[in-house]
Amino acid sequence: MNKTSSPKVTARGPVDHEVRDQIVAAATEHFSRYGYEKTTVSDLAKAIGFSKAYIYKFFESKQAIGEMICSNCLRQIEAEIRAAVDEVERPPEKLRRMFKALVESGLRLFFQDRKLYEIAASAATERWPAARAYEGRIRELIQDILQQGRQTGDFERKTPLDEATMAILLVMRPYLNPLLLQHGLDYTDEAPLLLSSLILRSLSP
Amino acid sequence: MNKTSSPKVTARGPVDHEVRDQIVAAATEHFSRYGYEKTTVSDLAKAIGFSKAYIYKFFESKQAIGEMICSNCLRQIEAEIRAAVDEVERPPEKLRRMFKALVESGLRLFFQDRKLYEIAASAATERWPAARAYEGRIRELIQDILQQGRQTGDFERKTPLDEATMAILLVMRPYLNPLLLQHGLDYTDEAPLLLSSLILRSLSP
Repeated sequence: MNKTSSPKVTARGPVDHEVRDQIVAAATEHFSRYGYEKTTVSDLAKAIGFSKAYIYKFFESKQAIGEMICSNCLRQIEAEIRAAVDEVERPPEKLRRMFKALVESGLRLFFQDRKLYEIAASAATERWPAARAYEGRIRELIQDILQQGRQTGDFERKTPLDEATMAILLVMRPYLNPLLLQHGLDYTDEAPLLLSSLILRSLSP
Repeated sequence: MNKTSSPKVTARGPVDHEVRDQIVAAATEHFSRYGYEKTTVSDLAKAIGFSKAYIYKFFESKQAIGEMICSNCLRQIEAEIRAAVDEVERPPEKLRRMFKALVESGLRLFFQDRKLYEIAASAATERWPAARAYEGRIRELIQDILQQGRQTGDFERKTPLDEATMAILLVMRPYLNPLLLQHGLDYTDEAPLLLSSLILRSLSP
């Protein structure tokens, strides 16, 4: 990772990076146990054994730590989705896998790591950069699959690529966004199949 | 309306109906001003000038009053959607109008009657019968339009009708459900057009 991408860190060599990781790891555990909203930077400092001032050298606020955790969490979900997509060859099957994987990883986050889910929900409410960037990367993944499918002749080419991509992102969004997912738990069994079939019908050449 | 459809009302003739309407009208105003969550049945009784016991003769709880208000509100939205659908002849255009109307009436509820919106949101969270019935009626409307389109040859007939209907309901659901709508305000401008176009592509014969 390029150092210049984290402007809030003073340049002090690789050790800084380790300290940041250490803070994030401790905060992840602390937030998971006590919740993001209830924990203060003082609580974290106490739990890690650092001074509050020392933590502020690395992160300008609790939100900055929360964003980093959220970003890690979304990157992991994204990695799972990409792995599911890469397992199959044909673009239609890639889209089905993508929908299934994103619902499954969202549900796992929701049911197994409820406190992390709360952080992701804060990120989605407050539109943290990490959440926006995630939505952007999912959009790119959709667009890549569409382009592949247009090349293989599996998908129609009449609709502008941007329009088709955005419409599919909107169909997936209620399952991507943790705030929305919690209101659709009744449908998470059938939604991936029903909606990816609808999407594929819309893409038939 | 058939009396037997409201089992909680003691049969005392048409006057009861008027009293119920009076309570609902006063409660709608009171909830709109002070919010559903904050208002108690005592507050309502005081505002209307009835005793609390008298109100309980007509509604078994605040929730029962809230449900009635929510039901009225959803019926009005439904009437607006049906009017929009009836304005045009061809099934594809009916679907487009339907999507546009449901987003517009949801947004009007959200921005103009915020307190009523809160009641609708409670209904959606707690899955009140009124909210479930509304979703059921919207589903029927989708199915009717699909059937018409299959008869006119505008829509494909290969996909089982139930499956196509449910998938379209799932695409519309984030805009039907007030809890979901509030998290999609960034997309309400483009969503109706993008998503109804995607739906129509999925229906092409």
